[in-house]
Amino acid sequence: MKIGGQAYRTIWPVEEGAAFAIIDQTRLPFALEIVTLRDVDAMAHAIRAMQVRGAPLIGAAAAAGVALAMRADAGEAGLDTALTLLAATRPTAVNLHWALKRMESVLRPRASTERAAAAFEEAMRIADEDVALCAGIGAHGAGLLAARAAELGKGSVSHPLNILTHCNAGWLATVDWGTALAPVYKAHDAGLALHVWVDETRPRNQGAALTAFELQAHGVPHTVIADNAGGHLMQRGAVDLVLVGTDRTAANGDVANKIGTYLKALAAQDAGVPFHVALPSPTIDWGLPQGADIPIEERSAREVTHITGQDAEGRLIEVRLASPGSVAANPAFDVTPARLITSLITERGICAASREGLTGLFPERASAQTDQ
Amino acid sequence: MKIGGQAYRTIWPVEEGAAFAIIDQTRLPFALEIVTLRDVDAMAHAIRAMQVRGAPLIGAAAAAGVALAMRADAGEAGLDTALTLLAATRPTAVNLHWALKRMESVLRPRASTERAAAAFEEAMRIADEDVALCAGIGAHGAGLLAARAAELGKGSVSHPLNILTHCNAGWLATVDWGTALAPVYKAHDAGLALHVWVDETRPRNQGAALTAFELQAHGVPHTVIADNAGGHLMQRGAVDLVLVGTDRTAANGDVANKIGTYLKALAAQDAGVPFHVALPSPTIDWGLPQGADIPIEERSAREVTHITGQDAEGRLIEVRLASPGSVAANPAFDVTPARLITSLITERGICAASREGLTGLFPERASAQTDQ
Repeated sequence: MKIGGQAYRTIWPVEEGAAFAIIDQTRLPFALEIVTLRDVDAMAHAIRAMQVRGAPLIGAAAAAGVALAMRADAGEAGLDTALTLLAATRPTAVNLHWALKRMESVLRPRASTERAAAAFEEAMRIADEDVALCAGIGAHGAGLLAARAAELGKGSVSHPLNILTHCNAGWLATVDWGTALAPVYKAHDAGLALHVWVDETRPRNQGAALTAFELQAHGVPHTVIADNAGGHLMQRGAVDLVLVGTDRTAANGDVANKIGTYLKALAAQDAGVPFHVALPSPTIDWGLPQGADIPIEERSAREVTHITGQDAEGRLIEVRLASPGSVAANPAFDVTPARLITSLITERGICAASREGLTGLFPERASAQTDQ
Repeated sequence: MKIGGQAYRTIWPVEEGAAFAIIDQTRLPFALEIVTLRDVDAMAHAIRAMQVRGAPLIGAAAAAGVALAMRADAGEAGLDTALTLLAATRPTAVNLHWALKRMESVLRPRASTERAAAAFEEAMRIADEDVALCAGIGAHGAGLLAARAAELGKGSVSHPLNILTHCNAGWLATVDWGTALAPVYKAHDAGLALHVWVDETRPRNQGAALTAFELQAHGVPHTVIADNAGGHLMQRGAVDLVLVGTDRTAANGDVANKIGTYLKALAAQDAGVPFHVALPSPTIDWGLPQGADIPIEERSAREVTHITGQDAEGRLIEVRLASPGSVAANPAFDVTPARLITSLITERGICAASREGLTGLFPERASAQTDQ
């Protein structure tokens, strides 16, 4: 997608494949800073420090990390070390493990002399496939938005369709297009008038920082709100549908997404507002029967007690918010049960949030599970 | 209650009634600053700028503001100007209007020569009554906490009773004791082991700043969380009950409280966690049939896009959080329908969140309404 008229992906090869460039997302929305990563340690740091974040982008970044590792040491030890290092960066991200498994299955059978080239090719293929997946989600989801607008007589500039989203499931969370925001971009580009309520998404404020930044850059009307406001807006009819992404989808359609998603799903149900989850199929964990089994990452308490923003002189400053001496807890994700989800939007189409819905769209995975 | 071993109220007369002192709550939790207010304009500013906040304290402060006005100009014009000025400071706060009405009914019939003394006396009476109301809520609510602890076999140091609260309904929101936190203080002082999950309460962070500060000062174990986390904690059994205050209660038991309260009520219902609302009876708006009719104050967008905290050198600094160029919306309250509320805790006792429940405890108000 575009920033200031220039097309970007969130990760791309530079120096003839000897390095990868990323947009440092911890510096957004105040600065657009491109960082060049030259080895697997730098890539692992970028994933851990959330310079790259979002399930699909984490997968592409991990694959790129393996490619960098293979240029340094393509032996068994080098491969094992790289896979272990990258797997430990974000334990909840199923995409990370999926990408690493795929890289391993391509590289393990090959001679070490072939691994660097093969790893680079496979990492690029993973990135390109993600772009295609997201474009597919966008196309299916845009149809759903158009149908909802038609149902409500909305979609004109005087009566835009009001969408609420949580966290950042936009193109910055993927290689391009985004998951939850792909339908928004596709529908907006097709001339449907939209307005997006953007949950700021404490504690890391990915909504206020990243979702607002990318919607602004693309010209989509939007309004930032505190996470607390969404229930009230739904209660008073200001939200026509909710559209979020997911970090991990259980086989029964339960989804683990950024902490607070579950609260919005409850409010949507209470107000009769459709609640949709967009996901590329690699985020489906077919071996996981239900969301209650998903381990929830506990992140640093400092993300709650402190926050970083830009001061009047344009400097990034960390300030303390919480009363000194008080401790904090910081669960990073919550599980939204399938019963609260109107539909799942995948690259293959739209389905019910259920085992039947998912296996209907992905019958080959259903039979693979049955065979186990 | 105590800070550093010294007993405070949140507002008290100084200079022989020529002024009132307050704790400047916009400086908490990083600095304890006492501000002396010498005229009604200063008091109106303090209410508007939320140097004093919380429904009961706003009422006491408005009454004190009228008392200051009467020392300067006790004529009809002086009274009218003071009432109009103070009424406009916080439109949603029913306590504000209740206190002003009461002051007017005492002062209007009197000669202007008597008004200054009468206004001071009445303002002090309002403050003392609030302390008594809160102590009553504390006594009734502490019994409810003890009963819940007994039901769950909790309340010992190894198994404390886990309470979740939103915003600040502690003693800093009242003249003393607090509303939702009064039962916590009473139960804690009586030896019941408690732990409080403190919602930070964006956008103004009254939970992370004020509730955490006062629990810390009193020695009650607590943990600050992002507002997004409460649903997850309830889902996984980490919350035994929710206890919040209210700015305005409709006659049917619907409550308007700080934005985000409704989302916690939905999560409590979904997880089968009791959800209690503590309120002094002056916050009941007997003429208001239901919560859906409550006008919701829209506050400054800057409260969402920016935040103030303490930097590493101890200075209070405002930083921008949201993407530059993006707009924000900031509804300050939401309405929690009575159907989601387990019980209301008042100074007279505990009742169902319904017209019948409220009129059972306050039969004199029920008949007053019928007479209209």
